[in-house]
Amino acid sequence: MSEEKKISIDPSTLTMIKKAKDESIETAWDRKAILKTSCGFGTAGVCCRNCGLGPCRVSPVPGKGVQKGVCGATADVIVSRNFARMIAAGTASHSDHGRSIALDLYNSSVDGDIKVKDKTKLMKVAERFGIQTEDRDIYDIAHDVAKAGLEDYGRAFGEVNLPPTVPEKRKQVWKELNMIPRSIDREVVAVMHSTHIGCMADAEGMIKMAMRCSLGDGWLGSYMATEFSDIMFGTPQERFTQANLGVLEDNEVNIVLHGHEPTLSEMIIQASELPEMMELAKSVGADGINLCGMCCTANEAAMRHGVKLAGNFMQQELAVITGAVEAVIVDVQCILPSLAELSKNYHTKFITTSSKARIKGATHIEMGEENKLETAKNILKEAILNFKNRDKNKVMIPEFKSEAEVGYSVEEIINKLDKLVDEKTAEKQTVKPLVDVIVSGILKGAVAIVGCNNINTVQDEGHIEIIKGLIEKDIIVVVTGCSAQAAAKYGLLKKDAAEKYAGPGLQKVCELLDIPPVLHMGSCVDISRILELIGTIANYLNLDISDLPVAGAAPEWMAEKALAIGTYVVSSGIDTWLGIVPPVTGSPEVVDILTNKIEDWVGAKFYVEPDPHKTVEQIVNRLNEKRSKIRI
Amino acid sequence: MSEEKKISIDPSTLTMIKKAKDESIETAWDRKAILKTSCGFGTAGVCCRNCGLGPCRVSPVPGKGVQKGVCGATADVIVSRNFARMIAAGTASHSDHGRSIALDLYNSSVDGDIKVKDKTKLMKVAERFGIQTEDRDIYDIAHDVAKAGLEDYGRAFGEVNLPPTVPEKRKQVWKELNMIPRSIDREVVAVMHSTHIGCMADAEGMIKMAMRCSLGDGWLGSYMATEFSDIMFGTPQERFTQANLGVLEDNEVNIVLHGHEPTLSEMIIQASELPEMMELAKSVGADGINLCGMCCTANEAAMRHGVKLAGNFMQQELAVITGAVEAVIVDVQCILPSLAELSKNYHTKFITTSSKARIKGATHIEMGEENKLETAKNILKEAILNFKNRDKNKVMIPEFKSEAEVGYSVEEIINKLDKLVDEKTAEKQTVKPLVDVIVSGILKGAVAIVGCNNINTVQDEGHIEIIKGLIEKDIIVVVTGCSAQAAAKYGLLKKDAAEKYAGPGLQKVCELLDIPPVLHMGSCVDISRILELIGTIANYLNLDISDLPVAGAAPEWMAEKALAIGTYVVSSGIDTWLGIVPPVTGSPEVVDILTNKIEDWVGAKFYVEPDPHKTVEQIVNRLNEKRSKIRI
Repeated sequence: MSEEKKISIDPSTLTMIKKAKDESIETAWDRKAILKTSCGFGTAGVCCRNCGLGPCRVSPVPGKGVQKGVCGATADVIVSRNFARMIAAGTASHSDHGRSIALDLYNSSVDGDIKVKDKTKLMKVAERFGIQTEDRDIYDIAHDVAKAGLEDYGRAFGEVNLPPTVPEKRKQVWKELNMIPRSIDREVVAVMHSTHIGCMADAEGMIKMAMRCSLGDGWLGSYMATEFSDIMFGTPQERFTQANLGVLEDNEVNIVLHGHEPTLSEMIIQASELPEMMELAKSVGADGINLCGMCCTANEAAMRHGVKLAGNFMQQELAVITGAVEAVIVDVQCILPSLAELSKNYHTKFITTSSKARIKGATHIEMGEENKLETAKNILKEAILNFKNRDKNKVMIPEFKSEAEVGYSVEEIINKLDKLVDEKTAEKQTVKPLVDVIVSGILKGAVAIVGCNNINTVQDEGHIEIIKGLIEKDIIVVVTGCSAQAAAKYGLLKKDAAEKYAGPGLQKVCELLDIPPVLHMGSCVDISRILELIGTIANYLNLDISDLPVAGAAPEWMAEKALAIGTYVVSSGIDTWLGIVPPVTGSPEVVDILTNKIEDWVGAKFYVEPDPHKTVEQIVNRLNEKRSKIRI
Repeated sequence: MSEEKKISIDPSTLTMIKKAKDESIETAWDRKAILKTSCGFGTAGVCCRNCGLGPCRVSPVPGKGVQKGVCGATADVIVSRNFARMIAAGTASHSDHGRSIALDLYNSSVDGDIKVKDKTKLMKVAERFGIQTEDRDIYDIAHDVAKAGLEDYGRAFGEVNLPPTVPEKRKQVWKELNMIPRSIDREVVAVMHSTHIGCMADAEGMIKMAMRCSLGDGWLGSYMATEFSDIMFGTPQERFTQANLGVLEDNEVNIVLHGHEPTLSEMIIQASELPEMMELAKSVGADGINLCGMCCTANEAAMRHGVKLAGNFMQQELAVITGAVEAVIVDVQCILPSLAELSKNYHTKFITTSSKARIKGATHIEMGEENKLETAKNILKEAILNFKNRDKNKVMIPEFKSEAEVGYSVEEIINKLDKLVDEKTAEKQTVKPLVDVIVSGILKGAVAIVGCNNINTVQDEGHIEIIKGLIEKDIIVVVTGCSAQAAAKYGLLKKDAAEKYAGPGLQKVCELLDIPPVLHMGSCVDISRILELIGTIANYLNLDISDLPVAGAAPEWMAEKALAIGTYVVSSGIDTWLGIVPPVTGSPEVVDILTNKIEDWVGAKFYVEPDPHKTVEQIVNRLNEKRSKIRI
């Protein structure tokens, strides 16, 4: 038990790991054990493979051992370059996702597979891009919006369209630091160039470039990904769902939708609602089709359709190991390549759909630009027809599942806030009520808990302990990504969680607004929703973002994307806590920049704190500092 | 002596290393020695640092030891991702250089620091971009050309402007492989995305993406860099120069221009020609200003102005160690960060000028978008005024230098070919004479020797031995980059080298055309000149590039840029020999793709052969195979 406790706090995870062991099935935890200790050079960030003179590895201890690579790069140079490349990869991933969404919007049509679902959002987004809307066909507007968005990926001239939620003061901070992205793609290329042998050998310069690059993720690529997805697939509203592996059904076709871009899941959902598909399911003896989500695809589909959350990152193999999954259907990012081999031990079909992420050993059915729904139907058929191959002797669905309320887009939060507004005297549809409860001290602040699961820590523990600790202190928490699923699994997204865990102020607010104390705001790209909300509040108060009593934490970050997020969040003026030490410890200068000096630049910094309880304490202190600085 | 022989075949290098030792000055060779053995995992490409689950390192030996990372990535997956990221970094570097050049062209004006120098080239390039030229101001045309070029960096729609020198058959090959870049920057971003955790886990898919990315380097970014540089700074013509550290002068202000983008050196050259600068030099007791080049900046400046070549990559520290250099002025790429500390041991000023490559410890004088000449003057003044600080006791200029003819742009080669044309009967300004001597067998083929110096092999030996071996076999050789400087240093760019080293056929051709047997075609981005020449020949013969008896070799490659070059050269249908083993040996699949399977895709492949003499043998055999296939 004590050994198991180190792996996860999630009973369904522990149950499935045991099943895997009993069946001699390899999981990530087994691979981690086989790998022995991680390389100390890599962990400290002091290993350089950026040219053919090396590879070089300098000492992670300043002043002791090898101090320079062949070219003369010091630990500071090497670490800063490696860190910057991680940010570039993270930014590239989110933004390339955003590009696909923009292209989908560009290809949307009144009689196509992809339509405009939320005209109000389209109009709002069109306005911010300066696109004419009066007397125009909705699709002409949509195409112009998509085009305008795509321009920011590759513009050679002019300025990118920063959303109006970026406070003017923040823009000035960035301008002075030469940190406004020239285009999304260009900043990724710029980092890749400057990390090449013989280029940037100055940690400060390098980190600043990485910061500029990351802003293209948060305020451009991810921001558009969210906005355009809402236009096509609907802006999320409060919705009921369930979470954890227990959502798999005994006698239904269980399909796990896994990955990130919402288009695939939207098409599968559409296809699954066709009567012919239900008939096909019945014809193979199933009671129905049970769509579940994994990772960010789960968040996207839950926020818009109430699709159940099968679990977060570390549970993707475990879903297959239940023996009850007919198909895992994936697009891009965070998909363990082990699923190809693993699924062969069960009847599960592992279906890849994106040319960006082919996986050897998977069944590949490409979801191209055209005939998306038709492709989705073919994929769904494969899954349904696979139901008959399920081996009942191998099936074990853990009983654990929890209820959750999801769907808190900024729009929905503002709708909820209207409950606090006196019909006659006050304006509706503003953030004023939220500002009021924060200024009055009923809420002490707001914190975003985001990011991944990481095998190097206890699954979900960091997320859950920090969330509980904060809401107890009357700090409202918003969640995205795997953190959101963790919260869902432990009942923290239920409305009654307020009574159970929240402090009196937050409890009262939750009661008045009829919301849970922890708000699911979506997938990882939807951290843009958090930026939108915080930017809106800052603008309302005529403050900079860095003045607000808000913070972010990624207690179990794992992906390069998460580091990109952390970097744009800090660059936006929001302190960010990391629960896993990033590979920078080999450079005293980089550590100092990220946890200290960066605050002089952008008014916020990174904290690295593996202990969730200390994290809560630090966040609370920091929010109080911010409160007293702005005299609230 | 035998130990020294292992370092370099260049006597000036050996002399300077000795001086460094005597003065207890650290060089790259010392750092290499201190580093001990390179990491075996990194060398084999099986170390993965692309997420926070690891770092993971799998066994470089198939079937033995750890076979998978935590996520399940195999050696094949890890190696292919690492290789792809190297290609992305190389492509980013060349293309970002091209972008700066395009922006310079966009900012050129009749009364500005940057003007249009070669109107003929401008018209030619304008035509291929479909830009109207009739009755238009030269600068309006130039700006439209620049704009059209910049569009290909970030286009969201439509097709990139592949140069007309890409044979139609080659375009078809790429089209079928989905390998035509959608935009330059996008393909870098796409690789960064697909190498993120949980994306591409299929070596074939990954390598194909890297190939598509690299084509954006060769046929777009680098191609434009060359064309637009020629427009602004002149298309190279045959020119005399000298090479090796012996070009430094005893009583002149020695300035080493080092880096890659030609704009900096062009501005410094312009500034150095101002009478006030010469006067300033005299006033400090110098006889003059001696501009010398290092790395690709040297090639750019030599090709257009006959600026002397101080040496190639491994000699940059050695130039400072002569004690006779007043300033090393750099922009981007291949600049050893060690120069900052090293130059402090002498009077040398180490001046960085680009925000893309700041180096801690250097004097930074930013060469911005505006007032370039003024900035150049300030930089030059710093250098000149530093002359008085030269410590004569520390000065030792090696006596070695060699004469060389440079400047063989495609235009200049075609000019030379006109000598073989009968004025009355045949058309001038075509590649026909070159085709004729190849088809008739007077020349057996043409080979490009390119790339870097690498500390892991004997400096220049690979370049020189391969060049000598090939020209002896009547194969004409073209060179760029550090290979070109190697050739220059050993007298192979002299016209009399034909008599000394070339076979009878090549000797005759050299005599008739009045050229050396080895043609200096420029810097690393100027490998686009080689593509242009070979594409033109293929089009003339109505063949695909892969049909021609041509090959490429990078015997001492070191930079990620060189791997990007190798990849676009192979993808263009030209077999390429690498003298240094790339970090792919840990994956049997990737090795098989690069050295075998890739030929099924694009009609060419990589050869890895550290022995220069075996390389010559293999190239000769392969060219003969090609000759017999097309029955010549």
